[in-house]
Amino acid sequence: MRIQVILTGGTIDKLYNPFKGELGFAQTHIPAAFEQGRCGVSLEVQQLFLKDSLEMTEEDRAQILAACQHSPHSQIVITHGTDTMAETARYLIAASPNKTIILTGAMIPLSVNGSDGLFNLGAALMAAQCMPVGVYIAMNGRVFNGAQVTKNRALGVFEALH
Amino acid sequence: MRIQVILTGGTIDKLYNPFKGELGFAQTHIPAAFEQGRCGVSLEVQQLFLKDSLEMTEEDRAQILAACQHSPHSQIVITHGTDTMAETARYLIAASPNKTIILTGAMIPLSVNGSDGLFNLGAALMAAQCMPVGVYIAMNGRVFNGAQVTKNRALGVFEALH
Amino acid sequence: MRIQVILTGGTIDKLYNPFKGELGFAQTHIPAAFEQGRCGVSLEVQQLFLKDSLEMTEEDRAQILAACQHSPHSQIVITHGTDTMAETARYLIAASPNKTIILTGAMIPLSVNGSDGLFNLGAALMAAQCMPVGVYIAMNGRVFNGAQVTKNRALGVFEALH
Amino acid sequence: MRIQVILTGGTIDKLYNPFKGELGFAQTHIPAAFEQGRCGVSLEVQQLFLKDSLEMTEEDRAQILAACQHSPHSQIVITHGTDTMAETARYLIAASPNKTIILTGAMIPLSVNGSDGLFNLGAALMAAQCMPVGVYIAMNGRVFNGAQVTKNRALGVFEALH
Repeated sequence: MRIQVILTGGTIDKLYNPFKGELGFAQTHIPAAFEQGRCGVSLEVQQLFLKDSLEMTEEDRAQILAACQHSPHSQIVITHGTDTMAETARYLIAASPNKTIILTGAMIPLSVNGSDGLFNLGAALMAAQCMPVGVYIAMNGRVFNGAQVTKNRALGVFEALH
Repeated sequence: MRIQVILTGGTIDKLYNPFKGELGFAQTHIPAAFEQGRCGVSLEVQQLFLKDSLEMTEEDRAQILAACQHSPHSQIVITHGTDTMAETARYLIAASPNKTIILTGAMIPLSVNGSDGLFNLGAALMAAQCMPVGVYIAMNGRVFNGAQVTKNRALGVFEALH
Repeated sequence: MRIQVILTGGTIDKLYNPFKGELGFAQTHIPAAFEQGRCGVSLEVQQLFLKDSLEMTEEDRAQILAACQHSPHSQIVITHGTDTMAETARYLIAASPNKTIILTGAMIPLSVNGSDGLFNLGAALMAAQCMPVGVYIAMNGRVFNGAQVTKNRALGVFEALH
Repeated sequence: MRIQVILTGGTIDKLYNPFKGELGFAQTHIPAAFEQGRCGVSLEVQQLFLKDSLEMTEEDRAQILAACQHSPHSQIVITHGTDTMAETARYLIAASPNKTIILTGAMIPLSVNGSDGLFNLGAALMAAQCMPVGVYIAMNGRVFNGAQVTKNRALGVFEALH
């Protein structure tokens, strides 16, 4: 059994650029994070792009969907910005991929003290192995049905829609 | 839904004592780690003791079992040293508690750079919510049946027994 | 002997704001950093403001100068953004304060992995105790005469002017 | 100008060994720490050995002295365990080396959260550049005359002897 990990960027993967004085994208830190977690699951990591999810286009989402469909694996973790994570979840649901797909990310970059990223990656990887076919978001130690979840921006947490 | 978290110590919770020049136990860091993970699951944390799992006695294991049985919650995460984690899992299995119990810990303390602890806590919390009744070990990004797992000390990883 | 520490902000003191998704200022982390350094020197910490040094005005610099002049202490460390640190140094020199004044800061915030902030604070505090009267910049493990230093923005390092 | 850095081990350079479950020595982290500090001073790093200073012998101290004497540089930083740092300082003083020698170390390893190591390295490097010929200890943000300093083990701080 092997798990596909698809990287798309988001806060979780932002790095501080000391020349620009701001956070941005350079190389990904996700494989290093799984290594820190002493991950014993065989992962196939594919980086599509690294971008802020507010800048994600329909084309980007089509590319994510295609990567899910073309993967030889039926369990998939996608790292993604939190702002439009729920939107991407619904985009994937609409295509009914016959796989277990878990979107995750972080409120604080892995490169910043106090990041939730490593916790979320552990939770997402576990959800990918335990949950039935469907599209989910793993954040805040919970797994949400991708069709019924929203980010509460005022509180900075994901919540189930009823 | 609420999840019981039972603390027993182990490497994950060790702190450096600058006066003694060695790692030991003081106050627990597990609640702070769940907070760092921005955990949105309601947790009931109970600290039984903080000890190295090599020093754990049958009485200690009886105390862990009693805490599982007396908990009003049916989903339980136990933090535990890795060296005898499999032994405790089998002790709990023998008592057939009708709950989902996940043991976890870390190879590197939460207080040391490069710790796997936060990753494991995320994985364990997710496993507690997703797995059916039974006793499991969540380590290395995997969930193992507690009856068929061993720690490979030479490699520092958990492995399934066949 | 007591050392005055004047806080003005800069990269060294920036924190990640998970709601805004960017680095900004909240409460200062400088006293906590000195505590982490197990600092045994008696410090009198005064926070003037916390701002990006690119936004610093002549009024701000006048306020820094006044704080130096009014301090009962003759050894002063000022935390400051790196972009206009040399400008503030020359502003202070023009007023000929009869004290040892060390400006320092960081290229990476204390709150971000791999920060140079703690190293710089240690160097600045030592320079404040060892250097004769004058205005200096302590960065990159060196102490520069404030009248003859510039930040090489392309390289992200301070250099002596000849 | 170049500064000699002599590595001898001590708490500052200890790493957690997940197989043994304890702190010990592997490769040094001191050059990486100077790099994190974005050190612009040219350093010549020499590793004599990595050991706990309680296990340091007269032979070891003779080796440290010889390294100081044979160095082409007149400014020297020595990383050293704190427990016998003052003893080594006095050993070096007895040989009257005509150089500026700064001993430093840490109460918490660089590899452990909350380490004072980076702060001390910044302070020691600055002291090596600012202080006159002599043997000193740079700890707790202070520089102590090596002939008149002791470690207060109960408080975990260095203090001047009078």
